[in-house]
Amino acid sequence: MEKLGANPANSCPLTPLGFLERAATVFGDCPSVVYGGGAVFTWSQTHRRCLRLASALVSLGISRRDVVSVLLPNVPAMYEAHFGVPMSGAVLNTINTRLDARTVSVLLRHSGSKLVFVDPALVPLLNDALRLLPPGHPAPRVVLVEDPKFPRTSDLTYERLLEMGDPEFAWVRPASEWDPMVLNYTSGTTAAPKGVVHCHRAIYLVTLDSLVDSAVPPRPTFLWTLPMFHANGWSFPWGMAVVGGTNVCLRRVDAASVYDAIADHGVTHLCGAPVVLSMLANAPESVRKPLPGKVRILTAGAPPPAVVLHRVEAIGFDVGHGYGLTETGGHVVSCAWKREWDKLPASERARLKARQGVRTPGMTEVDIIDGETGRSVARDGATMGEIVLRGGYIMLGYLNDEEATRAAIREDGWFYTGDVGVMHPDGYLEIRDRSKDVIISGGENISSVEVENVMYGHPAVNEAAVVARPDEFWGETPCAFVSLKDGAAARAVTAGDVMAWCRERMAGYMVPKTVVFRAELPKTSTGKVRKYVLRNLAKEMGPTRRGSSSKM
Amino acid sequence: MEKLGANPANSCPLTPLGFLERAATVFGDCPSVVYGGGAVFTWSQTHRRCLRLASALVSLGISRRDVVSVLLPNVPAMYEAHFGVPMSGAVLNTINTRLDARTVSVLLRHSGSKLVFVDPALVPLLNDALRLLPPGHPAPRVVLVEDPKFPRTSDLTYERLLEMGDPEFAWVRPASEWDPMVLNYTSGTTAAPKGVVHCHRAIYLVTLDSLVDSAVPPRPTFLWTLPMFHANGWSFPWGMAVVGGTNVCLRRVDAASVYDAIADHGVTHLCGAPVVLSMLANAPESVRKPLPGKVRILTAGAPPPAVVLHRVEAIGFDVGHGYGLTETGGHVVSCAWKREWDKLPASERARLKARQGVRTPGMTEVDIIDGETGRSVARDGATMGEIVLRGGYIMLGYLNDEEATRAAIREDGWFYTGDVGVMHPDGYLEIRDRSKDVIISGGENISSVEVENVMYGHPAVNEAAVVARPDEFWGETPCAFVSLKDGAAARAVTAGDVMAWCRERMAGYMVPKTVVFRAELPKTSTGKVRKYVLRNLAKEMGPTRRGSSSKM
Repeated sequence: MEKLGANPANSCPLTPLGFLERAATVFGDCPSVVYGGGAVFTWSQTHRRCLRLASALVSLGISRRDVVSVLLPNVPAMYEAHFGVPMSGAVLNTINTRLDARTVSVLLRHSGSKLVFVDPALVPLLNDALRLLPPGHPAPRVVLVEDPKFPRTSDLTYERLLEMGDPEFAWVRPASEWDPMVLNYTSGTTAAPKGVVHCHRAIYLVTLDSLVDSAVPPRPTFLWTLPMFHANGWSFPWGMAVVGGTNVCLRRVDAASVYDAIADHGVTHLCGAPVVLSMLANAPESVRKPLPGKVRILTAGAPPPAVVLHRVEAIGFDVGHGYGLTETGGHVVSCAWKREWDKLPASERARLKARQGVRTPGMTEVDIIDGETGRSVARDGATMGEIVLRGGYIMLGYLNDEEATRAAIREDGWFYTGDVGVMHPDGYLEIRDRSKDVIISGGENISSVEVENVMYGHPAVNEAAVVARPDEFWGETPCAFVSLKDGAAARAVTAGDVMAWCRERMAGYMVPKTVVFRAELPKTSTGKVRKYVLRNLAKEMGPTRRGSSSKM
Repeated sequence: MEKLGANPANSCPLTPLGFLERAATVFGDCPSVVYGGGAVFTWSQTHRRCLRLASALVSLGISRRDVVSVLLPNVPAMYEAHFGVPMSGAVLNTINTRLDARTVSVLLRHSGSKLVFVDPALVPLLNDALRLLPPGHPAPRVVLVEDPKFPRTSDLTYERLLEMGDPEFAWVRPASEWDPMVLNYTSGTTAAPKGVVHCHRAIYLVTLDSLVDSAVPPRPTFLWTLPMFHANGWSFPWGMAVVGGTNVCLRRVDAASVYDAIADHGVTHLCGAPVVLSMLANAPESVRKPLPGKVRILTAGAPPPAVVLHRVEAIGFDVGHGYGLTETGGHVVSCAWKREWDKLPASERARLKARQGVRTPGMTEVDIIDGETGRSVARDGATMGEIVLRGGYIMLGYLNDEEATRAAIREDGWFYTGDVGVMHPDGYLEIRDRSKDVIISGGENISSVEVENVMYGHPAVNEAAVVARPDEFWGETPCAFVSLKDGAAARAVTAGDVMAWCRERMAGYMVPKTVVFRAELPKTSTGKVRKYVLRNLAKEMGPTRRGSSSKM
């Protein structure tokens, strides 16, 4: 028994890139990519286009482990990049299109990117970013991706590149399954972006695991409401090749476009942050269209608020809720639904669905541990601890940042997520906060999310975010930033009203001592509230004093 | 980029054993195992029973890499062994219950098995096998698995062992994902059984891949018509824990029991050799019951004959067809169905479904190569070659048989299946024969399966098997063994009639020169025709002479 182990036939590197070749065989004549701008491809065409892309990149001098970036919305070329770029041996770096030029410049420099594919609408952003590169830094080659909606402005275009490429190209297989394949910069509720690197093995595993966990059937029609630059669309670009799905691309996500696409293409699946759910729930009747059938929405990032959940489910959407990080390549935890729960009242169902859930089948272990002792917290739904993970698709690490990698992946075998949560008695976990968002007041941990959830219940509150404000006596106290709903009644609400609302519904130490009204809360490009901005604002207000409360 | 690689959080060994713990959390109160004899367990109970089993084995002195055998039909203990035995660190060896005592004895000796779980009905077989062990060979410990249908005859029983065990046991995780986990002896259409060893990684991968490939939805009801000793039930014991299925156990597979179980439990899925399809198709009206809904059957081993396929599909079954070997732990190729094919005439659909198909998504590569040149054969549906494979769940090798391992897994990175097939122009492969079953007549390769398929079309033929018979002039000629259907008309058929039937439908050199009628053909315990027995019979007949034909 001792003599048996890895051998030449079973140790060939695991990679998701082979999914495409199979899709071309099984689903060759079926639509692969559909785009309102005009393009419709079959799986056989997508396969050949990706081979052309890989071949052309190699002929341009791109070699193993070179970084190739894309600055693209969800257009067909963005989909193709997920296969074509790594098939050249290169590492695919998808850049968030909503970043500012300075940050894009920082990412291009940090990644040492050799080539950038850019959308016509994003050329000005890229040009600004390139100008901000330090003198002497070799500028990446730029390839414009044509779009029917924009005039052609460049010589080296994406389609010309594909024409150069060989559709029979023998793609560059990874030498090891641990070879890097994708590089994604965290969008950052914190200030400094970090470059998360995933290998071929990890993407292969997360793709299969996500398909099983979401029970995706063959030949779904998948609407790209989730940006593919966001953690590679939670692995679904590769997953669609496995199941022969139709990828419906969308340049811009708004309620009308989404309802139109669902009706026009018979969409069965889509993913998105809770903001997508809100958008669908709050869309005016004039833009809504009847759903062609059951449409499954997978959401993550923050728990969907109960009222939004009711509304989208009433429209006919079926919502699944998960949890993942850029560092995990996709969902590692999901709220596996129990049939018995169908019978519960709507509010109870929403409460259960708001929990992040249990690890996906393919993840090895998930736990919530006490930061001091390193031991699992009690399964009481109340004791907070940090969520830690281990499994086959935890990232390799952060690019050129050994310190951050060591802080996240420790010798004890856990990846530390920086997210704070509780474990319920039934083994389902629920996130309470990012660890840096926990407010420590008089030695008590306060979950900002818990306070926010109560504030969301106030009829006048549109959005709420709670951060720590320094306090001379308590160390920190909760400080709430609130935007109000439209309408005179809502506008008349005072800070005192909101505090009174909270006081009736939570322990006294959790009640915000400061309530600041704002027309809008600052958000990241992926729709997360920029808590560090608010935290700085709270700090600048100076420390609260005993019993004080303020309104701005 | 170079510094990043495997780390403590992402290199934890892949193993399917963690699926059970998750099932206990998500599906805790749902039925896991149902058995006509009386037992009904929930996933929470199955989890705890498997931990008890693992713990008790450790307390009996079983340690890492020890072999623990089971000689059991598809009863609940058989299911539990698939988790409980490897959770003790041991290697699970499921023994085919239809073997003779001599062979069981050979396997126990070859595997060095430390302990055997045995069914009451199989105690005599095991006792005979133990008596045949050579003097001095340490006899394995025997544990009787109680069954309500049999009196208790032993002191150390399975349930007593579980009582000894700790349901909170910290199960023994593999030190490496390449650690051996299961040992299965090939049932052998050839004479010498070989011990196929699979590791934790392979079983993890094949389980997820099979669920994706078969698009198994959550909470299926799975009827165990396929023996779990047969390549570990094609990975579905572990797969059912992923999707929270109900395992309906069956001690005996006959048409009445299967129709009863489907109706009683609302079965949605079952697997089995084509003989199971025939059994369902040919069952008398008196034992048939209406199906509770769509029932999906996954079959493999030989292509389902068209007439059988029509009949079971007419009854309401939905048939999928795949291909795998004990050496691959489950299906590596399956006939991925295209919706367009639904519109074709029934005979055309049957022809397409009889093809084994394309590699499953998780397999890396499948090819058909010319034995001489090592190059891919033409995609013409006619040129024969050997089917070769590479991918994450090819076996580690044969236990204590380096020569056989080297012959199967070669330095070129391929696993050689020994199966001969053709590649169709659309990239779907079809098996023609085991390589040793190919008949070489005057330098022409004759696929025995191809000849048999034609013979099956003869209205009087019940079963047909074609092997090589030595020939003074041609080297070999096809020799057919045939059993006829009941009824006077069929019985009147002569060898000449059968040959004439063939002559009209195939090239002259392929027509059997010998036709032997038998009441029944010899079969293995898994229902495959024992071709080597027939080959020996053909050899004993002596060489055919030019132009001769014989009838026995």
